[in-house]
Amino acid sequence: MSKAVPEPVTRLIDSLSRLPGVGPKTASRLTYYLLRSPDDLSQELAISLQELKTKTRFCPICNNITVEVPCGICGDDERDHRTVVVVEEPLDVLAIERTGSYEGVYHVLHGAISPVNGIGPDDLKIRELVGRVDKGDILEVIVATNPGLEGDATAKYIKRELDSKGVKITWLARGIPTGGDLEYVDSVTLMRALQGRGEL
Amino acid sequence: MSKAVPEPVTRLIDSLSRLPGVGPKTASRLTYYLLRSPDDLSQELAISLQELKTKTRFCPICNNITVEVPCGICGDDERDHRTVVVVEEPLDVLAIERTGSYEGVYHVLHGAISPVNGIGPDDLKIRELVGRVDKGDILEVIVATNPGLEGDATAKYIKRELDSKGVKITWLARGIPTGGDLEYVDSVTLMRALQGRGEL
Repeated sequence: MSKAVPEPVTRLIDSLSRLPGVGPKTASRLTYYLLRSPDDLSQELAISLQELKTKTRFCPICNNITVEVPCGICGDDERDHRTVVVVEEPLDVLAIERTGSYEGVYHVLHGAISPVNGIGPDDLKIRELVGRVDKGDILEVIVATNPGLEGDATAKYIKRELDSKGVKITWLARGIPTGGDLEYVDSVTLMRALQGRGEL
Repeated sequence: MSKAVPEPVTRLIDSLSRLPGVGPKTASRLTYYLLRSPDDLSQELAISLQELKTKTRFCPICNNITVEVPCGICGDDERDHRTVVVVEEPLDVLAIERTGSYEGVYHVLHGAISPVNGIGPDDLKIRELVGRVDKGDILEVIVATNPGLEGDATAKYIKRELDSKGVKITWLARGIPTGGDLEYVDSVTLMRALQGRGEL
């Protein structure tokens, strides 16, 4: 077996297998694909990987990934700096930016409270959020953590921390997703959609 | 949008998206995972990627990926060098080695004949296979191309090329896979299993 697989190949397979959602089979497939493909793809990947960490940092204001300091959003005077959307991950910022319907700024927590995984409030950027609110310029905090046990627990923790600060605290509407088929909507979502029903 | 995603991040997402089976969504997820994970994972991946091509080459005998020349299998005197299994890809060598039931050597074609994709016999290592057979030491060529249109066409082309050389040419048995459920076996497989039925 070892004779059939040279060390540089197994090494890349092992490294790729450490990525989430990439099992040993996918890792082998990708590795042998890279072996067949022109050199520049693996080189390009190698360079991108190296520069990912060396060239980026966290924005000292919102904790999003950035090259400049502050990040493009925090440094944009045309955005509304009195409204802050709080998200778990940088990818969530992207998702909201893609809607094209939000003009405020962000705060990235880098996770959610999860006792099972040993993640408490102090492991997240919650203190930094409280600090931003304490400066007094923020009027509304929109908590956009993921809808689910951990995200909801995080949202409620944030609400408690900010409740006395005189800032408006909101969260995203819960309901049935657009284009969803009622038949396939889970019952918690359906229950919340019923509870939150509006005038037609 | 561009403001929310720094260039090193989009660059890695773009590179990863070029991998087979990795769409833009998976690429983003992997990139942001790497951003969160300790530095050594992206560094380890970058180094493995660089060494994949610089440290490996194709075995001049069987065309498998190798560090040494000849490869560990071709250089192994304890193996049976008179029997050659012909496969499409290096991963197929692995699959056969894993069975632990083959003691011969290999020949990697690096693909299969595929007119649709513009791959003809000359794009594969078929001439090299004929050359190995012409040397006269090979008694049996077991064609183990993938069961399917392209693999079968390749097998038949190889048979034609080698037919006059006095070498035994075989291919893998076709039938229902072990553990398979008859109900889910496709009809071509089932037809072949019937045609090739043996004494109970």
